[in-house]
Amino acid sequence: MKPRVLVVLGSDSDLPVMEKVPEILKELQISCTMTIASAHRSPGRAIKLAMDAEKEGYDVIIAGAGMAAHLSGVLASHTIVPVIGVPINSSPLSGLDSLLSTVQMPPGVPVATMAIGNAGARNAAYFAAQIIGRKDRAVAKRLKAYKKKMADEIEKKARTMQKPSPND
Amino acid sequence: MKPRVLVVLGSDSDLPVMEKVPEILKELQISCTMTIASAHRSPGRAIKLAMDAEKEGYDVIIAGAGMAAHLSGVLASHTIVPVIGVPINSSPLSGLDSLLSTVQMPPGVPVATMAIGNAGARNAAYFAAQIIGRKDRAVAKRLKAYKKKMADEIEKKARTMQKPSPND
Amino acid sequence: MKPRVLVVLGSDSDLPVMEKVPEILKELQISCTMTIASAHRSPGRAIKLAMDAEKEGYDVIIAGAGMAAHLSGVLASHTIVPVIGVPINSSPLSGLDSLLSTVQMPPGVPVATMAIGNAGARNAAYFAAQIIGRKDRAVAKRLKAYKKKMADEIEKKARTMQKPSPND
Amino acid sequence: MKPRVLVVLGSDSDLPVMEKVPEILKELQISCTMTIASAHRSPGRAIKLAMDAEKEGYDVIIAGAGMAAHLSGVLASHTIVPVIGVPINSSPLSGLDSLLSTVQMPPGVPVATMAIGNAGARNAAYFAAQIIGRKDRAVAKRLKAYKKKMADEIEKKARTMQKPSPND
Amino acid sequence: MKPRVLVVLGSDSDLPVMEKVPEILKELQISCTMTIASAHRSPGRAIKLAMDAEKEGYDVIIAGAGMAAHLSGVLASHTIVPVIGVPINSSPLSGLDSLLSTVQMPPGVPVATMAIGNAGARNAAYFAAQIIGRKDRAVAKRLKAYKKKMADEIEKKARTMQKPSPND
Amino acid sequence: MKPRVLVVLGSDSDLPVMEKVPEILKELQISCTMTIASAHRSPGRAIKLAMDAEKEGYDVIIAGAGMAAHLSGVLASHTIVPVIGVPINSSPLSGLDSLLSTVQMPPGVPVATMAIGNAGARNAAYFAAQIIGRKDRAVAKRLKAYKKKMADEIEKKARTMQKPSPND
Amino acid sequence: MKPRVLVVLGSDSDLPVMEKVPEILKELQISCTMTIASAHRSPGRAIKLAMDAEKEGYDVIIAGAGMAAHLSGVLASHTIVPVIGVPINSSPLSGLDSLLSTVQMPPGVPVATMAIGNAGARNAAYFAAQIIGRKDRAVAKRLKAYKKKMADEIEKKARTMQKPSPND
Amino acid sequence: MKPRVLVVLGSDSDLPVMEKVPEILKELQISCTMTIASAHRSPGRAIKLAMDAEKEGYDVIIAGAGMAAHLSGVLASHTIVPVIGVPINSSPLSGLDSLLSTVQMPPGVPVATMAIGNAGARNAAYFAAQIIGRKDRAVAKRLKAYKKKMADEIEKKARTMQKPSPND
Repeated sequence: MKPRVLVVLGSDSDLPVMEKVPEILKELQISCTMTIASAHRSPGRAIKLAMDAEKEGYDVIIAGAGMAAHLSGVLASHTIVPVIGVPINSSPLSGLDSLLSTVQMPPGVPVATMAIGNAGARNAAYFAAQIIGRKDRAVAKRLKAYKKKMADEIEKKARTMQKPSPND
Repeated sequence: MKPRVLVVLGSDSDLPVMEKVPEILKELQISCTMTIASAHRSPGRAIKLAMDAEKEGYDVIIAGAGMAAHLSGVLASHTIVPVIGVPINSSPLSGLDSLLSTVQMPPGVPVATMAIGNAGARNAAYFAAQIIGRKDRAVAKRLKAYKKKMADEIEKKARTMQKPSPND
Repeated sequence: MKPRVLVVLGSDSDLPVMEKVPEILKELQISCTMTIASAHRSPGRAIKLAMDAEKEGYDVIIAGAGMAAHLSGVLASHTIVPVIGVPINSSPLSGLDSLLSTVQMPPGVPVATMAIGNAGARNAAYFAAQIIGRKDRAVAKRLKAYKKKMADEIEKKARTMQKPSPND
Repeated sequence: MKPRVLVVLGSDSDLPVMEKVPEILKELQISCTMTIASAHRSPGRAIKLAMDAEKEGYDVIIAGAGMAAHLSGVLASHTIVPVIGVPINSSPLSGLDSLLSTVQMPPGVPVATMAIGNAGARNAAYFAAQIIGRKDRAVAKRLKAYKKKMADEIEKKARTMQKPSPND
Repeated sequence: MKPRVLVVLGSDSDLPVMEKVPEILKELQISCTMTIASAHRSPGRAIKLAMDAEKEGYDVIIAGAGMAAHLSGVLASHTIVPVIGVPINSSPLSGLDSLLSTVQMPPGVPVATMAIGNAGARNAAYFAAQIIGRKDRAVAKRLKAYKKKMADEIEKKARTMQKPSPND
Repeated sequence: MKPRVLVVLGSDSDLPVMEKVPEILKELQISCTMTIASAHRSPGRAIKLAMDAEKEGYDVIIAGAGMAAHLSGVLASHTIVPVIGVPINSSPLSGLDSLLSTVQMPPGVPVATMAIGNAGARNAAYFAAQIIGRKDRAVAKRLKAYKKKMADEIEKKARTMQKPSPND
Repeated sequence: MKPRVLVVLGSDSDLPVMEKVPEILKELQISCTMTIASAHRSPGRAIKLAMDAEKEGYDVIIAGAGMAAHLSGVLASHTIVPVIGVPINSSPLSGLDSLLSTVQMPPGVPVATMAIGNAGARNAAYFAAQIIGRKDRAVAKRLKAYKKKMADEIEKKARTMQKPSPND
Repeated sequence: MKPRVLVVLGSDSDLPVMEKVPEILKELQISCTMTIASAHRSPGRAIKLAMDAEKEGYDVIIAGAGMAAHLSGVLASHTIVPVIGVPINSSPLSGLDSLLSTVQMPPGVPVATMAIGNAGARNAAYFAAQIIGRKDRAVAKRLKAYKKKMADEIEKKARTMQKPSPND
């Protein structure tokens, strides 16, 4: 199966957060490639990944980076493949720096920004699947099933909780 | 031409910011529908829009809202069509409230968040086009042309500027 | 005793914070129901809880959620029963995201917002009791007794402290 | 008609924001008293207002103040009548100071905090009505009518907007 | 020796931070009283302490409190004795809430605000001594000696450090 | 009358804010000197002012500065005369930069920080008077009169407001 | 005279802020080139400028950009010529976004960050001169003269101010 | 070898962060001196270090300090040798206080600000080397080698990662 999502980490220290991405994509049966490229320390590599993304057949790029997180912006500036950015909390500023560096892109070069950290990494995978789901009905179907499962799990937890109500 | 992007405003006061979206989509020859639905004041309407989005044939939803901006999240919770959120600066907190309310979504329900205000509205349109570009080569081609035009304009401005250099 | 307060958690991970609510309500002899419903993952369930709240006889709804905390806003948009929101600190942003998502509600759909985390959960219970105290004199009386007890405890602590004064 | 809501302004400079409160209460046919008392410059007056609120028959107190906004907290510490706080944007910090000073109350003395500024002032009135609506069916009925009116207005605006769709 | 500084804690949980105050005052041979009074939970007690401060002979009041830290403001509103406020970091917002609640006082009721937490508690003691030093030459002399000692300690540390220079 | 308060401006652009200081001191019949000295652009001058302050007979120094506001800290590091700092809002960050640069002083060198801007400048004058009031009964008496006047003015405004109550 | 400083603007809208740079460099008799290159809209151009900077003989690069300000970081990643970054205030977030995007660079790729906006643009020029002053004594001499002039101007302003002292 | 970089710590508690500076300078074969001087506790010492820096032959000063971090600004105000500031995270505000106190310098006295904490300390060393590299070709060559090494390391890590791709 040809990979459809390119996952790029700004540093191997981002792996504990970003490893959720391939896990979730696998559950949704979407093949991906994960690699490292720093916007600052290996800019040539990052640019080449972005420039080749379309002809390599990728439908989405997911980039995770911390601090002055330029990685997703650099990738987005060299491709028209949709880029999803995951701000990572790796400085004393709790990810506010990476959030603003990722989301506040100037007009013409969008980055689809997710929440800071783990939640964002997981949502990047779901959002990539939603994009692919626009042209692949099988993926769309799996997303609907996942949506239903989420609601069912809440119902189940709610039933468990309501029993031993604290005021009975 | 059947509309492919659904643009939802949380309030008609968001129009001056959000009207950039249909303008840019039109330039890229992508048809859209623009309407109003408040997550809080007309939740039923917002939910129905989201629930019907897929069968209406929309490929992307773009939602713009200010303050505790729940609109994009409410829409995303009722559909698997990708939702792009534009935080609007309409409170004394300069859009920090709408940015955090839009981007910090919990796992399972992503919202692709853009920059606060005008830049974000314009990028929402470009990002919607990038999503559609994954299955429509004509749109992808127009995006590439736009990318080239942006670079060319900078080159042109640079040439104008470099002439009357301040230190000559 | 029919429950008068409906306590809704956005996730079972919010339980360690929100479990203070039924504890305090119990001390004030106010019956409550506690359940789970996510604004994003089980929106239908959340909406139904809100829509039924009035006819179920609830006088107050208390909702606790983290991140882009839409739960209290979603509940408030479907009922005229007063909704108290507790922002929960469950992201790297220390609850600033949930605070702003809860408090910055647009006109027409108020959420009575409490402090972030434990203090907020406890105050949500006291504020619910204050609302009920407006029509139930027994509850009002217990609240006055509690207020007096708080002051007395400070007096007692002050007496203990003043003895071994560090400058004697 | 005996006033049921006591509206307290920290300063007469808060009037342009707070005057929305009696306007909306009047629409909902709820009588109120509006006065001034500063937590810092006339603390005795503020304390007396709070201490007398219950026996004066008030069901709710609404307090609006800016900067280190202690007014609602000072009132709440002297009464068990529910206190709603409106943070007012009157310093260079855009109301962040008054928001945190109002909402971050310690356990035992809740203040129901609304949004900063105009939106908050209006919601304070609606929330006061919701509290009163718990024991006064006429008020509850008017709130439901208002809720329906809000949704209807959005529908009407949406119909107007959808006509001249920008991509037709 | 009659105490000249009144130290008030908003809660006994503030003791680990505030206990630096009497320690440093003792070193400077300034007698103090330390007690507890909450602006919210025991407002009557707090007000009485402030009202009696002048006739009790106190030259300075030091108040430490967290969250929506109203204690120093409440004290300052009832006395003309200088009040020094120490914002304490006791909520998820890292003391930003207590800092703004303490420092952003409206005109007419100043609170001399120190840094958040330990540094602030220590500086509150030094600043109290500086105030007393304006009328008590012995205290002024001790402050000068302390200032010299600080500089000497840095010189000594610098000498130790410069020896094993990392580039030798 | 020998001046007792030294007012130092970081720049003449701070004058519109800081001119409140001598105005209020004059009302309280406290003589002052106002001058300019920049911590960064004329550090020698600033240091000399601080070093001479005690022997010149000043009881208090008030310093107003914006941006990375080091002026009050530089003064405080060269004297044991109490230094009051007024953070001035002169950068795009709304005075948050000058507030933190002024208040977050390390242990041993306190700066008594006031609110950002106008409110802070006025309170600096009142706080200086409170310090002087500890050894000058006439000043203390005037401060008490001012405190009473503030409360009276609120009472008067409250009487005016209560007449045309909006719900009558 | 061969230009020694390369000034790069992210957009021509940054000109009103950045035009201070060549003005000040001219006063210090340092030749410069000013041009435009966007990290996002014309990345190829930005990269080429950085890659050629050393062999073109530039001693310093100054880059000004707003929002998610990646320009200085992108330049710094392609050269060892020192890069000075000026965060520009061009979004609703008052330059906090551009400040954090510029300053929070990961290890190995430094950007010397200046203050937000006008002050930063001016200081970028002075800092560039300080770097050049390390190998060019004439520039160092002019910087010393400028430093003296700044102090003298303050002295002069102080003399003017002290005359009509407000308490005389 | 005569030291060319002067490293100044505001306190010995900053050593664990700042010790990266001499380590990296040593790798780049640049000699340095490291010492302690507090802007507040030993201002005389700090000023003397700055005033002597040029004649001692230093090409760069690096200063690390926390809280209201005035050290780099105080040094910069007494010399024309370039000063690099490292904001250190040593208060509850996560270094936001030291960042703003370091970077927001007024016009005329620049401080080249690096990232908060470890990343900033390391980049201060690299930036110092870049400044020296403008007149010392051997240092410039070592910086280029380091830049290449960074990129190579990323390539190597990327190769390792791509093998056990999670979707194979």
